[in-house]
Amino acid sequence: MGNKAELEFISWLRTQATPKNWVPVGPGDDTAVVNWPNDKPCLVTSDMLLEGSCFILAEAGAERIGRKAMNVNLSDIAAMAGIPRAALVSLALPRNGGKQLAQQLFNGLKQAADIFDTAIVGGDTNSWNGPLAISITLLGYPGPKGPILRSTAKPGDAILVTGQLGGSILGKHLDFIPRIAEAQLLSQLANLNSMIDLSDGLALDLHRLCAESKCGATLFADQIPIADSAFQMKDDKTPLQHALGDGEDFELLFSLPAFEAQHLLKDQPLKGIRVTQIGEITKDGFLMEEKGRKIPLEALGYIHQFD
Amino acid sequence: MGNKAELEFISWLRTQATPKNWVPVGPGDDTAVVNWPNDKPCLVTSDMLLEGSCFILAEAGAERIGRKAMNVNLSDIAAMAGIPRAALVSLALPRNGGKQLAQQLFNGLKQAADIFDTAIVGGDTNSWNGPLAISITLLGYPGPKGPILRSTAKPGDAILVTGQLGGSILGKHLDFIPRIAEAQLLSQLANLNSMIDLSDGLALDLHRLCAESKCGATLFADQIPIADSAFQMKDDKTPLQHALGDGEDFELLFSLPAFEAQHLLKDQPLKGIRVTQIGEITKDGFLMEEKGRKIPLEALGYIHQFD
Repeated sequence: MGNKAELEFISWLRTQATPKNWVPVGPGDDTAVVNWPNDKPCLVTSDMLLEGSCFILAEAGAERIGRKAMNVNLSDIAAMAGIPRAALVSLALPRNGGKQLAQQLFNGLKQAADIFDTAIVGGDTNSWNGPLAISITLLGYPGPKGPILRSTAKPGDAILVTGQLGGSILGKHLDFIPRIAEAQLLSQLANLNSMIDLSDGLALDLHRLCAESKCGATLFADQIPIADSAFQMKDDKTPLQHALGDGEDFELLFSLPAFEAQHLLKDQPLKGIRVTQIGEITKDGFLMEEKGRKIPLEALGYIHQFD
Repeated sequence: MGNKAELEFISWLRTQATPKNWVPVGPGDDTAVVNWPNDKPCLVTSDMLLEGSCFILAEAGAERIGRKAMNVNLSDIAAMAGIPRAALVSLALPRNGGKQLAQQLFNGLKQAADIFDTAIVGGDTNSWNGPLAISITLLGYPGPKGPILRSTAKPGDAILVTGQLGGSILGKHLDFIPRIAEAQLLSQLANLNSMIDLSDGLALDLHRLCAESKCGATLFADQIPIADSAFQMKDDKTPLQHALGDGEDFELLFSLPAFEAQHLLKDQPLKGIRVTQIGEITKDGFLMEEKGRKIPLEALGYIHQFD
């Protein structure tokens, strides 16, 4: 931080902040001070969104990008069955019109944060001759059963997913609701062994979960819940391929003992969001069962290039 | 995160991480899990460094930029008299040579983090067609006396500073040591009422501290410790003007009751780093006493432009 426009932006930010009793010091000091619940570890995640690579500002609008940037991080806290608490926002702004852009972004960030009672406690605002970059760090803490990891799936677990998958690019990738409340409820109602949020595609994210858990998986092709938007995609992929490989569904993928899964599947405890069994955790191998035969499952998904 | 090079980078990162017993889950899950000391709040700060605006990569080298990016954040924790614990690193990398650059940056980040027993627990790595951007978030907790704020200076306090000021651009701005240990010791030996780190220039940062504390200040011009490098600057500013207005000294500016200051000034408890009284906190006004007369003190400092 440093100049008049930035100080004005910070002053404006302070008028916008919803006071929270766990934030004795918000923006304006060298660090924020966030009171932490005793005996709870800190869950902490960062995601960066880059103009041109992750979004087209002119298409989406700044407020919507702000909401998405916060929601992407909230989705990571959801994937641990965590409760979000405080966020920091760092912006690299283009030099022209930076202040107005920062305010629009902040409006979107705050809308998303307010829904989940999350305080925006600080960050850093800079300008440069480059495109817009937004980096968010989100702090949270786990629910009563502790964090649900990627690395603790067990062979024999049922693999379940919330909602429908594929074709997110037609709209949901910008306007999804992070599954914070759903993850809380699921982890209270059952003993989840592992969980991940689907950000880069079902097949790739399942592959990651299995790699962390040192296990395999078999998916049941005809049970994968395919979103309407996956059928509306106008390209040469099938709807199933979209459900397997499209990124940014931001649904929860989780595993739990089969008998516990049966209760969830029968009770359908999430309001308006279906949970579906789509496979099972195995000792090894990465397969898909389709029309009675098992074929190798490729780790399809969103590939982010650098070298 | 998403592709093969990124996964390779994460795998490499994991081999580099120094295990810490307070980090049950480091990079590789949806969030990191950091154990938090009971009854301690979380101090949290983010700083972003941008290529071309904050540094010239070709001049400084990636490893040095990595060190600086971590040290800038450590300096903010120091300014609260805090103890750093965990860092997250988000990178926007140019597409060509991103992986090698990421490794060099990480080497520097880790060197700085290791000195202060800080775990690098996660972050986000992306590539784009823009310049390099580094965003660091640092978590820490306060020492036994709690965080030292900007907003609690008291009229009558002595204003002290560590080290020497000005001309940092000749080298110190890249290779400074954040005053973590010094801040700890000072806050143990005396009851500091307020503190800030000097990142944007003495006059501007003092102005900020006074604005937060709703008070004024008078500086004693002939007591300001001027660095040798401020005398070596070849421009039309005086060494005193450099000491007042140059950014990136990364020294501590703090205020405390005058009688407590006398002990610190006499004992000089910091090894190799002098503490100097440079002024006093007043009820209002922002002045400099020079050759027996008081003149208005401009809030000189590093101005970061956007509109």
